[in-house]
Amino acid sequence: MQKILIANRGEIALRIARACREMGIASVAVYSTADDDSAVVRFADEAIRIGPPQTVRSYLHIPNIIGAALKTGADAIHPGYGFLSEDPYFAEICAEHNITFIGPPPHVMERMSNKASARQLMREAGLPLLPGTIEPVPTADEAQDVSDDIGYPVIIKAAAGGGGRGMTVVWRREDLRRAYQTTRAQAQAVFKDSAVYIERYLRSARHTEIQIVCDNYGNGIHLGERDCSVQRRHQKLIEEAPSIHLTPETRAAMGSMAVKGALSVGYTGAGTMEFLLDEEGRFWFMEMNTRIQVEHPVTEMITGIDLIKEQIRVAQGVPLTVGQEDVRLTGHAIECRINAENPDRDFAPAAGRLTEFSPPGGPWTRVDTHCAAGWTVSPYYDSLIAKLIVWAPDRAEALDRMARALSEFRVAGPGMRTTIGFHQRVFGHPVFRSGDFYTDFIERHMTD
Amino acid sequence: MQKILIANRGEIALRIARACREMGIASVAVYSTADDDSAVVRFADEAIRIGPPQTVRSYLHIPNIIGAALKTGADAIHPGYGFLSEDPYFAEICAEHNITFIGPPPHVMERMSNKASARQLMREAGLPLLPGTIEPVPTADEAQDVSDDIGYPVIIKAAAGGGGRGMTVVWRREDLRRAYQTTRAQAQAVFKDSAVYIERYLRSARHTEIQIVCDNYGNGIHLGERDCSVQRRHQKLIEEAPSIHLTPETRAAMGSMAVKGALSVGYTGAGTMEFLLDEEGRFWFMEMNTRIQVEHPVTEMITGIDLIKEQIRVAQGVPLTVGQEDVRLTGHAIECRINAENPDRDFAPAAGRLTEFSPPGGPWTRVDTHCAAGWTVSPYYDSLIAKLIVWAPDRAEALDRMARALSEFRVAGPGMRTTIGFHQRVFGHPVFRSGDFYTDFIERHMTD
Repeated sequence: MQKILIANRGEIALRIARACREMGIASVAVYSTADDDSAVVRFADEAIRIGPPQTVRSYLHIPNIIGAALKTGADAIHPGYGFLSEDPYFAEICAEHNITFIGPPPHVMERMSNKASARQLMREAGLPLLPGTIEPVPTADEAQDVSDDIGYPVIIKAAAGGGGRGMTVVWRREDLRRAYQTTRAQAQAVFKDSAVYIERYLRSARHTEIQIVCDNYGNGIHLGERDCSVQRRHQKLIEEAPSIHLTPETRAAMGSMAVKGALSVGYTGAGTMEFLLDEEGRFWFMEMNTRIQVEHPVTEMITGIDLIKEQIRVAQGVPLTVGQEDVRLTGHAIECRINAENPDRDFAPAAGRLTEFSPPGGPWTRVDTHCAAGWTVSPYYDSLIAKLIVWAPDRAEALDRMARALSEFRVAGPGMRTTIGFHQRVFGHPVFRSGDFYTDFIERHMTD
Repeated sequence: MQKILIANRGEIALRIARACREMGIASVAVYSTADDDSAVVRFADEAIRIGPPQTVRSYLHIPNIIGAALKTGADAIHPGYGFLSEDPYFAEICAEHNITFIGPPPHVMERMSNKASARQLMREAGLPLLPGTIEPVPTADEAQDVSDDIGYPVIIKAAAGGGGRGMTVVWRREDLRRAYQTTRAQAQAVFKDSAVYIERYLRSARHTEIQIVCDNYGNGIHLGERDCSVQRRHQKLIEEAPSIHLTPETRAAMGSMAVKGALSVGYTGAGTMEFLLDEEGRFWFMEMNTRIQVEHPVTEMITGIDLIKEQIRVAQGVPLTVGQEDVRLTGHAIECRINAENPDRDFAPAAGRLTEFSPPGGPWTRVDTHCAAGWTVSPYYDSLIAKLIVWAPDRAEALDRMARALSEFRVAGPGMRTTIGFHQRVFGHPVFRSGDFYTDFIERHMTD
């Protein structure tokens, strides 16, 4: 692998370009006109403009991206997260052009990125599933019957959904039909696929996901778990590793289940198996993310393993050099997603020029960001402006370190608002500090 | 301990203030008029101006610093490195005002910060010393006799010296008398003490130092070593941990010697024992630094132990919670000192306003700095503007990571020059990459 085109933008594009440089691989950035002066455009070895700000005409526009790869002679494409990262069709087109897609094989991605199909396959592989449907539910009547059987609350999920979108929780029988119709319509609009399935909804559950890496030779390892229970409308806001609620036995069980499930479908590269964990330590497979995730740094910080480099090595055909027994989880890491959003206006995205952007530094404090003073946050893209990650020997010290780091993070600009203050409130909250919370933490404790 | 006054400036003052905040201890910054808008002044809980830019009237002016502590009710002072950090008189005055000096007891500091006295004490404790004098050498005739006995080259060192100043290597007999007189005069001028001693000079040696921490109850541990062989005129430029030239046995031997030596004199807190290591793995005690060192972050990154917090805990009277068997060295860390200096003008200090200051980020990349765009680098203080530290699982990857991080570090301003480009050349040099070099690396390989 000589040259990797990065089919993404923002912090993850810079993250990938950094890994390329450290590995001695040339990098190509692609960018829309809204990202003209972005950090990755300046940092990458080459940069090609691929279209206007609208994502369908740039970052989602396959012909322009493939064209940029051919023009620059890139022999591989890293899709990052979002955009085309879980599009099997894009992965296939890469293969047709003899470009290595850094991710799983297209047919595996197709089967695992569809939630309904993934549930089916993982059930066959022996993973525990919450009560619910395997096949998509085609009619409101059937939805009603199924939900009555499961018992309320239930959650209706778009089979093609992802990133926390296309999900509706139904608390009462009388709301079911309407929610079913709405979710289908949403799914059709957003994912161009109206299929939905239904499963039991657990209120007092923790979102616990296992990071796995598999090579092309049937070897797979897991790198422990991440707790991502702090969510607002199914959007993760804070992630930590390890989870303080997993016993070593449950961790080992969940980890080996995740690896077994991935290997059973021929998965390769880095991936994430998402589970729900209840108060008794029982867990159920929810879905798989067949790409690198936003929150991968917390796993990196407790394992010392560079996940982007692992993805690239697997795509190069290198066998895993790390065995399960070599993976040691050390200390505790936490990530805060710093978004350009206005907490006083229900977290509406904020855009505009940053007159000040001064991230924290110092010990065990990592900032992944594409922003700098003078940079304009575009309204066209998601609102993530930085990931702030800290590590410490234990959770208590990691909380203190994050609070310190947040206290020195300064962002300003006309109309600019961020989630920094919101995170500070969370880190000052006794329930958050105790660790004794579930996926409903924000709605229960952070809404005033 | 409720409130710590930080009797220092620059990156180390901010580093200490960050530790205070994470520990829930209030911090007081002191600053000269040249540091009005410095990062620590903005970050600390309180800030007091103590004088004009000249160090003797501010950062070295004991009455003003003690006055600031009394005024703000600080019950402890952290001296950082340089300035008053190794001044036993200052430590005594703190004690007289019932202010905890965060460092060893004054009488221990006095005996160990004087190089001649430290050599004597460590010889008594059983540490190996290079051939040379223990007592200061009072006359040129005696210097001549002693040097003839030792054999050339020899090194003449100011007993009160530190920070790489007050040392002269003498290669030939005929240069001895003149070098003796010059070094004495320098020592008198800089350290107000003309005493010098003489020892054998090893050309093919590595500067290898052991980090130790001792509590007030006779417990001491070492946190492995740092290789600081990349020096220009005895000034460290690059430090790494661990040293790739130490076998586990030599590491254990050097480490236990260092702890034994420190405990033999009643040392408490963090300290560093400097050794010279030769090609056969033999080593000799050189001197002790009775304070935190510039290069402490590389030790932090391979051990996970926060040395500033350890200093504070020891000063609070907390017994060591970590035993020697708990100290694990993981991976490899390297630090580059980024100085505002002009490599084309023999590294003359550069001062002036920074119009651009954009440090690198991303995985395992730590930046300790007080600088930001708009900040003015003062000609009154030392030229260190940032410490760039990286970690990786092994040295080869750490080298690649540092090269990547250096490649994205951008500093600009009228007349501003830095050592970034110099470091990039070092990291591209095959001899540096091989690790097979000695303290004369810069003069042998980096001067064109």
